[in-house]
Amino acid sequence: MNRKELFENIKRKKSFLCVGLDADVKKIPQYLLKEKDPIFTFNKQIIDATADLCVAYKPNLAFYESLGIDGWKAFEKTVKYIKENYSDQFIIADAKRGDIGNTSELYARSFFEHLDIDSVTVAPYMGEDSVKPFLLYPNKWVIVLGLTSNKGSHDFQFTTDSNGERLFEKVLRVSKEWASEDQIMFVVGATQGKLFEDVRRIVPNHFLLVPGVGAQGGSLREVVEYGINSQCGLLVNSSRQIIYAGQDENFAALSREQALKVQEEMKSLLEMKNLI
Amino acid sequence: MNRKELFENIKRKKSFLCVGLDADVKKIPQYLLKEKDPIFTFNKQIIDATADLCVAYKPNLAFYESLGIDGWKAFEKTVKYIKENYSDQFIIADAKRGDIGNTSELYARSFFEHLDIDSVTVAPYMGEDSVKPFLLYPNKWVIVLGLTSNKGSHDFQFTTDSNGERLFEKVLRVSKEWASEDQIMFVVGATQGKLFEDVRRIVPNHFLLVPGVGAQGGSLREVVEYGINSQCGLLVNSSRQIIYAGQDENFAALSREQALKVQEEMKSLLEMKNLI
Repeated sequence: MNRKELFENIKRKKSFLCVGLDADVKKIPQYLLKEKDPIFTFNKQIIDATADLCVAYKPNLAFYESLGIDGWKAFEKTVKYIKENYSDQFIIADAKRGDIGNTSELYARSFFEHLDIDSVTVAPYMGEDSVKPFLLYPNKWVIVLGLTSNKGSHDFQFTTDSNGERLFEKVLRVSKEWASEDQIMFVVGATQGKLFEDVRRIVPNHFLLVPGVGAQGGSLREVVEYGINSQCGLLVNSSRQIIYAGQDENFAALSREQALKVQEEMKSLLEMKNLI
Repeated sequence: MNRKELFENIKRKKSFLCVGLDADVKKIPQYLLKEKDPIFTFNKQIIDATADLCVAYKPNLAFYESLGIDGWKAFEKTVKYIKENYSDQFIIADAKRGDIGNTSELYARSFFEHLDIDSVTVAPYMGEDSVKPFLLYPNKWVIVLGLTSNKGSHDFQFTTDSNGERLFEKVLRVSKEWASEDQIMFVVGATQGKLFEDVRRIVPNHFLLVPGVGAQGGSLREVVEYGINSQCGLLVNSSRQIIYAGQDENFAALSREQALKVQEEMKSLLEMKNLI
C-alpha cells in the first residue's frame, strides 16, 4: 500500500485510527481461555467489530512471543485473517527490530516475505545498515522510532548535540534520507504534544505512527493540532482503551463503541482541517 | 549465573568465547535439510562439538523468527538442549528488544520465565522504563547496546553533546545506574578497537559482550589489549566463522577446529594478562 492509497482509505473511512492488537492472555475476557486458541478468537472478534472504523492494525510482537509457539501461531493466524477478510487494512508488525545487516535481512524476510505484512517498526540506534535491508521491499514500509511516548524518551532522545540538534531530530533528519516518503514513517508519541511542530519542521510530508493516546494519556486533539498535514499524515494508535473495553461476552461490542468514539472525533477533526 | 561464576567458568575453560548460534537454513550444510528439524539438528551438533571450548551461546532470534513457528520450535529446543546438557553455559537471547514498560514486561516474561534464558540484549533508545522490566529478575542479565560493531554505529552513537560526551558514552554512563554490575552488561563491537579504552573509563568492571571478531573483521588481540579487566570482563562472540566452517558431514568437526583456534588464542591472552 502506498501513501496515496492510505490517504484514500482515511478519507473513505473518515478515520486515521490504528487498533493495537496487544492481546495479553491475562487481560482478555477470561471465558475465552476455554477456547482452543484464545488469543486468535479474541483478535478475530475485535477485528470484525472494528474493521470499518480503522485503517490499520498493529499487533505488538511482544504479546505473541511471550506465549512461545502458541503465540506465534496466533500472530500468523491474525495477520492471515486480516489480509483475507479486510485487505484494505494496513498491517504494522510492532517489533522494534534493528540489528546488523545480515540479521535485519532475516527479520525483513520474516515479516515481508513469509508473512506479507505492510510495515515493521525499527529502532534507529544501530544506524543505516540496520534498517536498509527492510527498505529493499518496494511496497513495504519501515517505521523508525523517532520520539517515543514513554517517560524514558527523555533519557537519550532529547540529548542535544553541539549544534543544538536533539537526538530525535537527528534521527528524523538522517533517516528520512534512507528512502522515499512512500517507504518510511516515524513513531512519534502522542504524549509529546507541541513537539509535533518540531517533528513536522523536519518531516512535513511523512506519515507518523502515533502511540500514546488513551491509556498513556496523550491528546488526540493536540496531535492533530500540531501534527496533521495535507494528506493527514497520521496513524493514531489505541490499544488498551479499545481492546479491553469489556470482559464479558459482549466485549467486542464494547470495543466497537470505544473505537466509534475515537473515529467520530477523528471525523470531526478531519472535517475541521478540510481534509474530507 | 552471577559475575563471579562466569569468571570461574572462564578460568576453568581458559576461554571467554561465546558461540553465536545464527543458524540460517540457506547456509547450514544442505544435506541437513532432509532432517525433520534441520536447524535444531545443526545446532545440537555445533553445541556438542564446541561446549568445552566456550562459556556462552548466543542464538540470534532473527534467524529463528525468519522461519516462523518452525523457527520458534527450533529456538526453544536449542535452549532446552543447552540447559539440560551443558548447564554451565551462559545463554544470551540476542533479541535487541526494547519497548514501553508493559511490553518489555512481556518480553522479559517470555525470555526469563518461559524459557529461563540467562540474558537478553536490549536497545537503549527508549530509555530506562523500556529496560527496567528485564531487571526485575534477580539472577538474569540485561545486555545493553553500547557501541555496536557495524558501519551504522557511526550514524548516531558518536553524536557528541554540548559537554563533549558521545551518545554511546552517555548510554553507558546513564544505564549502568539502572542495576548492579551483576545484572548489566554492554555490547561493544570488536571493530571499535582503541575505543574500548573510552568504554572502560566509564564501565571498568562490567562484562562486555563483544561481537565483530571473525567475519566482521575485528581483532581479538586489540579487544583484549584495550578491553580486558581483572575479572576478564569480556565475552567475545564468533558466529559465522565457527558455525559455517564446513558444509559436509564433518561440519561439526571443522567448527570445533575453528573454535579451538580461537580458544587457544584466548588462553594465551589470558595467560599474558595473568588471569589464569
